[in-house]
Amino acid sequence: MTEVVLAAFLARDRSAIHDRLVEWLRIPSISSNPTRADAVRASAQWCADRMAEVGLENVAILDTPGHPSVYGDWCHAGADASTVLVYGHHDVQPVEPLDQWVSPPFEPQVRHGELFARGAVDDKGQVLYHLEAVRGLLERDGALPVNLKVLVEGEEEIGSPHFEKLLRREAERLTCDVVVVSDTEMLSRDIPSMCVGMRGLVALEVRLTTSTIDLHSGSFGGAVPNAARHAATLIAALHTSEGRVAIPGFYDAVRPPSAAERSAVGALPFDVGEFMAISGVRILEGEEGYSTVERIGMRPTAEVTGLGAGHTGPGVKTIVPSGAVVKLAFRLVPDQDPVEIAELVEAWVRVRVPAGVDVEITRESDGVKPMLTPPEHPAVAATARAVERVWGTAPRFTREGGSGPEEALGRVLDAPVVFLGVGLPDDAIHAPNERIVLEQFDRGVLAAAEVYHELGAMPRPKEDQS
Amino acid sequence: MTEVVLAAFLARDRSAIHDRLVEWLRIPSISSNPTRADAVRASAQWCADRMAEVGLENVAILDTPGHPSVYGDWCHAGADASTVLVYGHHDVQPVEPLDQWVSPPFEPQVRHGELFARGAVDDKGQVLYHLEAVRGLLERDGALPVNLKVLVEGEEEIGSPHFEKLLRREAERLTCDVVVVSDTEMLSRDIPSMCVGMRGLVALEVRLTTSTIDLHSGSFGGAVPNAARHAATLIAALHTSEGRVAIPGFYDAVRPPSAAERSAVGALPFDVGEFMAISGVRILEGEEGYSTVERIGMRPTAEVTGLGAGHTGPGVKTIVPSGAVVKLAFRLVPDQDPVEIAELVEAWVRVRVPAGVDVEITRESDGVKPMLTPPEHPAVAATARAVERVWGTAPRFTREGGSGPEEALGRVLDAPVVFLGVGLPDDAIHAPNERIVLEQFDRGVLAAAEVYHELGAMPRPKEDQS
Repeated sequence: MTEVVLAAFLARDRSAIHDRLVEWLRIPSISSNPTRADAVRASAQWCADRMAEVGLENVAILDTPGHPSVYGDWCHAGADASTVLVYGHHDVQPVEPLDQWVSPPFEPQVRHGELFARGAVDDKGQVLYHLEAVRGLLERDGALPVNLKVLVEGEEEIGSPHFEKLLRREAERLTCDVVVVSDTEMLSRDIPSMCVGMRGLVALEVRLTTSTIDLHSGSFGGAVPNAARHAATLIAALHTSEGRVAIPGFYDAVRPPSAAERSAVGALPFDVGEFMAISGVRILEGEEGYSTVERIGMRPTAEVTGLGAGHTGPGVKTIVPSGAVVKLAFRLVPDQDPVEIAELVEAWVRVRVPAGVDVEITRESDGVKPMLTPPEHPAVAATARAVERVWGTAPRFTREGGSGPEEALGRVLDAPVVFLGVGLPDDAIHAPNERIVLEQFDRGVLAAAEVYHELGAMPRPKEDQS
Repeated sequence: MTEVVLAAFLARDRSAIHDRLVEWLRIPSISSNPTRADAVRASAQWCADRMAEVGLENVAILDTPGHPSVYGDWCHAGADASTVLVYGHHDVQPVEPLDQWVSPPFEPQVRHGELFARGAVDDKGQVLYHLEAVRGLLERDGALPVNLKVLVEGEEEIGSPHFEKLLRREAERLTCDVVVVSDTEMLSRDIPSMCVGMRGLVALEVRLTTSTIDLHSGSFGGAVPNAARHAATLIAALHTSEGRVAIPGFYDAVRPPSAAERSAVGALPFDVGEFMAISGVRILEGEEGYSTVERIGMRPTAEVTGLGAGHTGPGVKTIVPSGAVVKLAFRLVPDQDPVEIAELVEAWVRVRVPAGVDVEITRESDGVKPMLTPPEHPAVAATARAVERVWGTAPRFTREGGSGPEEALGRVLDAPVVFLGVGLPDDAIHAPNERIVLEQFDRGVLAAAEVYHELGAMPRPKEDQS
């Protein structure tokens, strides 16, 4: 690893950089919880302060009707150099169930070279390695090899409801030749990989109401509708016995994977046993006719993300619940459209629930379209060279099951999107005991600098337009 | 109402008696919540103090491994007079959802002649009218017309887990000729009725675990089992399309209702429209081939009382839930046995849930057997005369859908059980805004005294045994 430009910088500052990450991770920037709005703003302020400290300029907190994004840039590489926009986010997922955390989610703790905290890898750690790479390069060379813009969102974990509008509003400031997204993972620490596509997402909340009050199960039970039972009946009908989503029209827009694509995916070093160990499951389930990797990367899914009715605390409460909430998340693949899918789901729910049971459906966001960047694109190849230099082996190309605002970034800014991500499959993102492996984080610092160099050396894709 | 013995007493003390009920209702004696144990004990102490104040003797707090019961008696009516044991309970249901209460559950408030508070009618109000009747009779006559024992339980709302053992331990002290249970309701304030049978109850909690942690719905969704979906699939299979409980053997022990019984039930003044208005439902559902009254009173049922998985709070949490909890309550009729039914349910759950999904089943209590006291019994007839004198019209006889420890009382103490209950169908027991109609409470004071007189004049059923 001696040939990488920031090796000495990292060796000197490693511990101080980790301390800075810990500091940021102490801020509970949970974007889905309205009572945490101040914390999300404090996190944005922390990020802005750090951007200024590492040498970025024009630092600004970009307000939205929701939580703020943060922006900073360094644009002195000259008109001939490429302009790279780095994307990440500073908001985090909720932390329940709290009792399953070994150490509290906002009191970061290092155990065996792994740093545990909510947001460690998703995504504060992956933003900070960029900022520290900027500091390292500016200290070493007094300049960066590219014009760099950094955009750190504050609402990624709630589906980026205001992000596309922000991109449109700030389009001039955000103009770039390539987008580098750092919010993904690789196959393992020994088998680096780069995401080239992500699934889309649309999430809905369905509320069923069977009566105005919870009813005594003795005095009313057996004669009145039970909201929990109606919710269960609805969910039980969501999939066919072959594991397909049973909503009419759901698969109509799905681009069938080519034989070549399926065979490339089949060649990935995917270990089912390891996947099961990481996920902690004892069985696998899914759509018949597809492998586990295909089910995650290239097939759309419907998941119940939340389900609640009646009394679930200690002890017996002998009621017929009057209401139930069902939270559904659909992962989408090209060319499914989140708005069209939401409409299909809503129509299906309204047909399934009997008259006399009230249905209220809320779209949790406008959804995220699925996206795909071909591995043969020069920016992907350039990023892959940087990854190879740091990890010592060429990265594989994967499609991720997750969803993000990458699709809007590429579309609004009219630039290719590449992924530099150092997460690992067992980092427990969105779950208790989220962590970042510190060696992966350190490699992120090194790799970010290498990516800037590779993309700086790449012919400007949009030079003719300048 | 001038001929009832406590008319003058009530006219004089009405307001002070209501104040005393308010005082007791301020104590949040929620037996299902371990953190409320002190409040349940404070409620027991309040009850014991009040027993002593009204003139009961041998007052004692009867400890159990759980929450305490309270006992007091007055046994100077002589060996020729009957001994009556009055039963009620001082613990109350949970109060969630708190935001649906017009006034806080433990800050009692009178609105339009109705007193709103958790426990108002279930069951502190129904215990207190007995205690006040004792005070009124002792003030007026210096004696009671019966030997009276009062037993007030502290764990009725959690299925009376220690009650039968307590009855056995205290059998000598509790010896009686008849048990009067005051924990039921009547058809309306104009149509008095007396319960002659109650359904049994057995409640279970089923926990399904599909993985060791909640998983990211992007990185894992579509390939791993979803605990919420498995819970829903289980619940959806609980009933047949005809509304029958689908568990094999569930109906084997059910005594089929006779044609006479069905025709008597059919003649009850039951108004389906009013029932729907009270319950706040827009449709009725249940077992095909039975009327609503039959479904509640004489048919067994399975209800989902609670259902929880994943994230149900505000916002999106894109996870595949690793665990789900399903709370089930089964109402039983003669001659179903709660232990046998629990075993059938457990076997059914274990067969239905696929291998690889962990199942943990907890019986929430030992269950309550169903019970039935025939209307022709002399103690029932005596109580009916007392009710007629206070309400001005003869009571109808009903079977209640609810369950209580009445079966154990009758069985262990070897005495007939009769029901004096002043609750109304829209009292919202177990729900937000529980109330007692104060006119019904007042009539309870009068009726209790009349019941003591009627049972005192009745030939002792067990005289030969004394």
